[in-house]
Amino acid sequence: MSNIRLLLSYDGTAYHGFQRQPEFHGPTIQGTLEAVWRELSGEEVVFTTAGRTDAGVHAAGQVVNFHSGTRIPRQKIPKAFNSLLPRDIRVLSAEDVADDFNARHDAKWKRYDYRIDNRPIPNVFQRIYALHEPIPLEVKLMREAAQLLEGTHDFRAFAASSTSSKTFTRTLYRCAVRHEAGLLCITCIGDGFLYNMVRIIAGTLLDAGKGRLDAAEIPAIIASGERRRARETAPPHGLTLTYVHYGAETPREVFPELFLQAGWDGGKDVRL
Amino acid sequence: MSNIRLLLSYDGTAYHGFQRQPEFHGPTIQGTLEAVWRELSGEEVVFTTAGRTDAGVHAAGQVVNFHSGTRIPRQKIPKAFNSLLPRDIRVLSAEDVADDFNARHDAKWKRYDYRIDNRPIPNVFQRIYALHEPIPLEVKLMREAAQLLEGTHDFRAFAASSTSSKTFTRTLYRCAVRHEAGLLCITCIGDGFLYNMVRIIAGTLLDAGKGRLDAAEIPAIIASGERRRARETAPPHGLTLTYVHYGAETPREVFPELFLQAGWDGGKDVRL
Repeated sequence: MSNIRLLLSYDGTAYHGFQRQPEFHGPTIQGTLEAVWRELSGEEVVFTTAGRTDAGVHAAGQVVNFHSGTRIPRQKIPKAFNSLLPRDIRVLSAEDVADDFNARHDAKWKRYDYRIDNRPIPNVFQRIYALHEPIPLEVKLMREAAQLLEGTHDFRAFAASSTSSKTFTRTLYRCAVRHEAGLLCITCIGDGFLYNMVRIIAGTLLDAGKGRLDAAEIPAIIASGERRRARETAPPHGLTLTYVHYGAETPREVFPELFLQAGWDGGKDVRL
Repeated sequence: MSNIRLLLSYDGTAYHGFQRQPEFHGPTIQGTLEAVWRELSGEEVVFTTAGRTDAGVHAAGQVVNFHSGTRIPRQKIPKAFNSLLPRDIRVLSAEDVADDFNARHDAKWKRYDYRIDNRPIPNVFQRIYALHEPIPLEVKLMREAAQLLEGTHDFRAFAASSTSSKTFTRTLYRCAVRHEAGLLCITCIGDGFLYNMVRIIAGTLLDAGKGRLDAAEIPAIIASGERRRARETAPPHGLTLTYVHYGAETPREVFPELFLQAGWDGGKDVRL
């Protein structure tokens, strides 16, 4: 038996999230991958994922692993998957990894991007990958709030109340508000994320950008640990799981361009 | 009565092209716009368009005009349309124009972009806006062929045989092959385009990029006037009508960045 790791991307629009669900909920990424692998290999396997994205959330660099006795050469696995997968899911690479590798538990940090189309009239070509927000956002105010979220905190106030997490302390290495190809992009890099955490951060920064939340309130919101103190969960379609890192490198080493202005250094937790 | 000009963009994926069709063919951009205007104003109008895009073709800057007795303030017209239009069509602006303005006949030149995703595995987020071509393309060869298409020619060999055009001479001011955000983009600017002309140009340049067509054959293909000498019509979903120009400015004046290396100067037809 081998342990195989896949890198994949998907447009989450048509899926009821990553995690397999009872069929009547609709298709899921996990269910689709497992059904395709069954067809390719005859094996019933369970895919372990780095991040269980919600319904409508996209992934540019999702990582999964599964155990298999297949003799398909590894470099042929992406093509085999892609020949049967729907066009909104693509396997980008496949490789053997150590037997005890677990895509979820071994992830050292992850990057999510939340995209916002802030023009009065939405760009039709971005409508399924970015939230349209017609109210002009003050980026400076969003950045002030974002910086106060960075660091190691108890993020209970930024977790859906339905979370099953038992620990709430996470390190947000970077929360950047950037301009990207005509869109506004909230980039969150952290060692782990609570349920809905990035979408609640996005909703909170949206309120900051509209002048409806003073950045100075952020420390008190964090300290309160109360979900109702943070703001609305932003819709799923603006969110993309961009990257998952398994090595020892810090986020600054992998994405130096995101740390040019300010931020936390991965692992050291020191304000720069 | 006023003559109203609209600037609009749409994702053509779900539509049977711009031009109204008998209903059983499926929805069209024109039919959708006219139905929404009927609902907004009670008026039965006919929209005239700068470019009758085919099924599956997109538009970032389509222009239409229609005659109306409406008293809706012009700056409120986009919002009124967008409140009733499906999310894949947006009206960007509306203004009164001269009574005799005709979006089709008064267009001085148009810009189309044909996008190609040339990675081995397609980017899921571009799958409906770019053609996926896994065979590596030699951009230099595509550019050599593209330059030989520029200028004033009888483009009969690059028109669908079903064309209803009576004249075939058009000026292609620029045919640029550019890298754009991870994609390859064939940008065509001309004073007019025959039916399927940009898609046949794209199909021909794709063959050039694969080494299946020598750029030196282009003049003979043009001179032959035979559709079968040019190559396959590239699929519609890679094509976007980007811009329509009505003023006296040349393409070089409006898009100087496209003319940095080589090209024809609009109106002067002189090789630079």
